Amino acid sequence: MVSLLVTDIGELVTNDPALGDGPLGLRRDAAVVVDGGRVAWVGDARSAPAADAVLDAAGRAALPGFVDSHAHLVFAGDRAAEFGARMAGEPYTGGGIRTTVAATRAATDDELRANVARLRGEALRQGTTTIEIKSGYGLSVADEARSLRIAREFSDETTFLGAHVVPPEYADRPDDYVGMVCGSMLAAASPHARWIDVFCERGAFDVDHARAILACGQAVGLGVRVHANQLGPGPGVQLGVELGAASVDHCTHLSGADVDALASTRFDCMCPDGGHTTTVATLLPGAEFSTRSPYPDARRLLDAGVTVALATDCNPGSSYTSSMPFCIALAVREMRMTPAEAVSAATAGGARALRRDDVGVLTVGARADLLLLDAPSYLHLAYRPGVPLVSTVLLNGESQ
Amino acid sequence: MVSLLVTDIGELVTNDPALGDGPLGLRRDAAVVVDGGRVAWVGDARSAPAADAVLDAAGRAALPGFVDSHAHLVFAGDRAAEFGARMAGEPYTGGGIRTTVAATRAATDDELRANVARLRGEALRQGTTTIEIKSGYGLSVADEARSLRIAREFSDETTFLGAHVVPPEYADRPDDYVGMVCGSMLAAASPHARWIDVFCERGAFDVDHARAILACGQAVGLGVRVHANQLGPGPGVQLGVELGAASVDHCTHLSGADVDALASTRFDCMCPDGGHTTTVATLLPGAEFSTRSPYPDARRLLDAGVTVALATDCNPGSSYTSSMPFCIALAVREMRMTPAEAVSAATAGGARALRRDDVGVLTVGARADLLLLDAPSYLHLAYRPGVPLVSTVLLNGESQ
Ligand SMILES: [Zn+2]
Ligand SMILES: [Zn+2]
Repeated sequence: MVSLLVTDIGELVTNDPALGDGPLGLRRDAAVVVDGGRVAWVGDARSAPAADAVLDAAGRAALPGFVDSHAHLVFAGDRAAEFGARMAGEPYTGGGIRTTVAATRAATDDELRANVARLRGEALRQGTTTIEIKSGYGLSVADEARSLRIAREFSDETTFLGAHVVPPEYADRPDDYVGMVCGSMLAAASPHARWIDVFCERGAFDVDHARAILACGQAVGLGVRVHANQLGPGPGVQLGVELGAASVDHCTHLSGADVDALASTRFDCMCPDGGHTTTVATLLPGAEFSTRSPYPDARRLLDAGVTVALATDCNPGSSYTSSMPFCIALAVREMRMTPAEAVSAATAGGARALRRDDVGVLTVGARADLLLLDAPSYLHLAYRPGVPLVSTVLLNGESQ
Repeated sequence: MVSLLVTDIGELVTNDPALGDGPLGLRRDAAVVVDGGRVAWVGDARSAPAADAVLDAAGRAALPGFVDSHAHLVFAGDRAAEFGARMAGEPYTGGGIRTTVAATRAATDDELRANVARLRGEALRQGTTTIEIKSGYGLSVADEARSLRIAREFSDETTFLGAHVVPPEYADRPDDYVGMVCGSMLAAASPHARWIDVFCERGAFDVDHARAILACGQAVGLGVRVHANQLGPGPGVQLGVELGAASVDHCTHLSGADVDALASTRFDCMCPDGGHTTTVATLLPGAEFSTRSPYPDARRLLDAGVTVALATDCNPGSSYTSSMPFCIALAVREMRMTPAEAVSAATAGGARALRRDDVGVLTVGARADLLLLDAPSYLHLAYRPGVPLVSTVLLNGESQ
């Protein structure tokens, strides 16, 4: 494998305060050397070592690849008509998931694989170099297992979400469904999964069912994530903290106690940012955009010291975007995050939400996932909404 | 020039109700034949005539190229820092334009040309096949004339906006500036312009100055457009109607009398939609997004029968997006336009705002500006916000 010098970077986001200014560790006129798929050197362009090949950034901005820690990519069909109806004024209740479950069960493996490949490719072109992929539209032992088996072909960050909703055939016996999720479904799914997740919400799974399912997943070695407090206040966030979840996702309706619980998980560490919360609050503003809902209060979380991640929630019902830059622009406009906070949340924050220290940063030893923008600064990701600015993507040091 | 058959179009937006369903004139399983840069035939894929070449849409959606009727592309520098400050809570007053005026005056012709080319290319890749380009950052006789001369290299739809703001050197004698705009500046600019425009707003030009400037432009054959009612209520919209403007742009703060004045310009015509308003209301939601302002009331305009266009307002101060799909997504989410209304406003509406009948439609004889989406329906432009879905662009029948 040849080494690569990326030079004449007008502005480099490292996410390591020791390497540059502010929390983003910003450097001007920088260079990065990539070797063996890893970052081998970071410094001033004028003192960069030689390498086998050179990529001239021509003054453009560079940053770590986006880490999208919440995406539902294994499904068939779409729900464009439901979207149109909702935008015409019908309230979103989440009931539409069953449409996708039926289409997913009816699809062949190759159809599901092609859909994941399409969305994974789309996300990669927009700069997403790490993506979590959930099951949750199979909801049978066989369909959850194959969803995760297919997801694993595209990402190591796979999440078993058998507890997405209770499928129609179990509607009048949810306890039986929970029993199956914890039993035969978990057994079939867990070999293909790193994480377990539950949609803990009125109309989905209550806190006792959610706790039972997550505990079963933990018992077989899966990490915990929770869909929490999206549609209304609820126990999901505090359940996540209780179980040491890596992330509680959505966080649209938070009480003071929820924020306090998240903040209480903060600890000092040896990582570049010096400290973060064990449980990350992952905000998914694409869902609020596409369901015309109020946005989460990101400022309250940030001001309390809670580590925040941004992710797409890419799914055919409530947020069919694969665009991390779009989520950054929404975070700034609608959630009053600064552009720096939003870019950090979309890179380092996502990495925290997946308990990864090898991505989301550009420090020596990190995976060489690096983006060049058709812009002189990361600020343009919020300043130029909707514009495809990601012009070059290195994944493991390889140009995509 | 060879003819081209675009076939297996899963869903075709023609914008001609005589050619298909609803106001969009939607057809399934359609084909379009292009010859000599024009649409030569529209119909069912199975009965399409032969052509020299074939483009297989493979079931994807096709629609007319976007018509962006409001863009400020001739400038130098950017205002990313100002954007960051505003997002951190400082109010937008429009004062930042002077920063861009200074940078534009200091730039060489080639620097200005390169910036227009960059943004024009970016817009084209996102499906904009017709774009209006304004001057307005020169604000001297020489700099306005060269801005329009350069703009004309990229578009026939050029607009003289010498009355954007009063430049600093005329700050204490605005009457003198207006005199120059109507005199030597108009004389130097008008050979390169089709339109004249005034920013009629508190802090820019009052109604008497605006009327005088627009009348001078009309006297030398320029069509009228007005920046109106963006930052507050004002006389701009009614002035535009009084002067028979093709478009009044922004329309963020409208009175009942403003809406009535626009609606009163409606007339029946032989065009595909059967009728529209002489003066179009052009809405620029990118500006409200990037200045965190309330959005215009599109429903009130549409319900009153006013023809609505969507445009980007692409400029380095208040709306640095070049993305018509982003504006469509905002129109649906924030202004409660239906996806069909938003797509119509971004194509046929923009054409009306430029008084063009050869673009914004896919009917026999129209310019062969056609987009293919990586999606089965135009609905996805709103359903999949932020995602670059435009996969193929034909401009004058030529693949870009
Ligand atoms: Zn989700
Ligand atoms: Zn404007």
